[in-house]
Amino acid sequence: MKDVKGLKRVAIAGFGVVGRGLAKALVTKKDVLIKRAGDYRIAAICDSKGGIYSEEGVDVFEAIRIKEKEGRLPEELTVEDIIDRIDILFECTPTNVETGEPGLSHIKLALENGVDVITSNKGPLVVGYKELMKTAKKTGAKLMYEATVGGAMPIIKLVKNELAGNEVLSIKGILNGTCNYILSRMEQEKMPYSQILSEAQELGIAEADPTYDVEGIDAAAKLVILANSLMNSNATFSDVERTGISSITPEAFEIAAMKGYTIRLIAEATRDELRVSPRLVPFNSPLCVYGTLNAALIQTDLAGEVVVMGRGAGSSETASAMLSDFVELSRCGSK
Amino acid sequence: MKDVKGLKRVAIAGFGVVGRGLAKALVTKKDVLIKRAGDYRIAAICDSKGGIYSEEGVDVFEAIRIKEKEGRLPEELTVEDIIDRIDILFECTPTNVETGEPGLSHIKLALENGVDVITSNKGPLVVGYKELMKTAKKTGAKLMYEATVGGAMPIIKLVKNELAGNEVLSIKGILNGTCNYILSRMEQEKMPYSQILSEAQELGIAEADPTYDVEGIDAAAKLVILANSLMNSNATFSDVERTGISSITPEAFEIAAMKGYTIRLIAEATRDELRVSPRLVPFNSPLCVYGTLNAALIQTDLAGEVVVMGRGAGSSETASAMLSDFVELSRCGSK
Repeated sequence: MKDVKGLKRVAIAGFGVVGRGLAKALVTKKDVLIKRAGDYRIAAICDSKGGIYSEEGVDVFEAIRIKEKEGRLPEELTVEDIIDRIDILFECTPTNVETGEPGLSHIKLALENGVDVITSNKGPLVVGYKELMKTAKKTGAKLMYEATVGGAMPIIKLVKNELAGNEVLSIKGILNGTCNYILSRMEQEKMPYSQILSEAQELGIAEADPTYDVEGIDAAAKLVILANSLMNSNATFSDVERTGISSITPEAFEIAAMKGYTIRLIAEATRDELRVSPRLVPFNSPLCVYGTLNAALIQTDLAGEVVVMGRGAGSSETASAMLSDFVELSRCGSK
Repeated sequence: MKDVKGLKRVAIAGFGVVGRGLAKALVTKKDVLIKRAGDYRIAAICDSKGGIYSEEGVDVFEAIRIKEKEGRLPEELTVEDIIDRIDILFECTPTNVETGEPGLSHIKLALENGVDVITSNKGPLVVGYKELMKTAKKTGAKLMYEATVGGAMPIIKLVKNELAGNEVLSIKGILNGTCNYILSRMEQEKMPYSQILSEAQELGIAEADPTYDVEGIDAAAKLVILANSLMNSNATFSDVERTGISSITPEAFEIAAMKGYTIRLIAEATRDELRVSPRLVPFNSPLCVYGTLNAALIQTDLAGEVVVMGRGAGSSETASAMLSDFVELSRCGSK
């Protein structure tokens, strides 16, 4: 760490639901975190339209109040402006799986300057995993990204650390909560896709333009991250064979149910292929989860099958994943 | 590490199924492990009747051959004899939850001598958790024990690290594979306890004297370890309210099934109590697992509910858990 006193100066880029949830958790959980990660201070917060900086530490709740009232932070401030005054960047800007921006530029800049990064943004990893890892290796900065896959469901560090020594033979998972909500409601209510989608949109579970979720784009992005980081792949988004859920009918569920199956959007990575598609899942499978839950079945050589489930999204859930990266970074460094 | 070249000299105490499985994994997985944990050498193996030591590293497969042929290792050698010539002790002797021995003495000796310990033995932790941790703190040696609970199911480091920053509100789990096998077979076959127990004994899933498993002793020991290490408790075995499974009837399963439930032996730790008892579990609960699987539902403040499942026992499964401790120890130290 740069600061002579060992105090880590952190910044948050992106101050939407994820960034604000993280900021709150960094304040409210400070006592617990200091014990595991050492002392720290939120020195800066940047969003797309402005920022706020304080050498003594930003007043987080005041920043949230301003952001929620004004729609932006008060100062003209970019990540570039503060990069030489921080030790860790929490990157929480929105995902763009085509360009990776603005996260990609933020992360590159940070790593090039020896600043460690903890990100919840899938885009930069999908677009530039290999390059980012190369930069990190060169400068010794670290890039952590537990929050990009599965929300609060532990998976990346789980496999790297808890299953260290194992070879991962395959990963099969429910990685998109919106699709899982729609499919489990279709199963339970025997109603058509369009109707359940509307319901999900009303509840805020699906976006006004649901393409990103229902066409399997989000799940495919997560699958690329898992394959690259846990199975030593060198995959890009276009390597994923992808089918969405919009053409599934209530009748398909009925026919499946007669044989003891339901239908879920399954993302699967094996040595040979990456695939996101609606698949038959036995009712007694651990992957038959309901609502917005995420689940993953990791097939290994020594441990056999290990299953994890958890909340795939949400403000405090994403914060939980980022805090675990924060502790890991401070404790061990990433490898 | 003591060795000037950074090479870690490890010893294995207890050369039964667990010790032999671990020894094999340390040899066959050496390439992968060296990258994460640094170089190492198995300098000694001790069992209850003998041992084997080699400064250049024991020939593990020869040691296994001798042990399986002779029932013991050739030299007169105890853990005491080799403690000043090793850096890490893998403690794999059988569990005794009353005395903790022989593991307790081995672990004490190691920690007092600054030797890190990785154990699969519940006994010493149930009997002497607080004292052992105190000794470890004093000498700076580390005590790791992922393999004591849940076999290959990640739980201890999962909560400490992957859920770092979270407060654990409760843990509820299936922690004994033998009981779960018996109960799931009773559910599926509608047969009485005694008959399924005999079947399990024939298959080697239950011991000739099944008390330790079916009376919930094993599950209670694991629950004490979870509560002490993950919920900041100071519990002992007698704090667990414990009921076994031997009086459950096929009729109980029938009545439960009519309401959508089955019966499982649930170990539960909350702020207020530690309990192991047969409980009604909804068929669609993640804790409704079958066969010898283990499962745990961890309730947290930030991440909400996180569920893990995995194989609760087995030679390579236990080795998997111990190897993850080995990597963690070498990478980060334990906290």
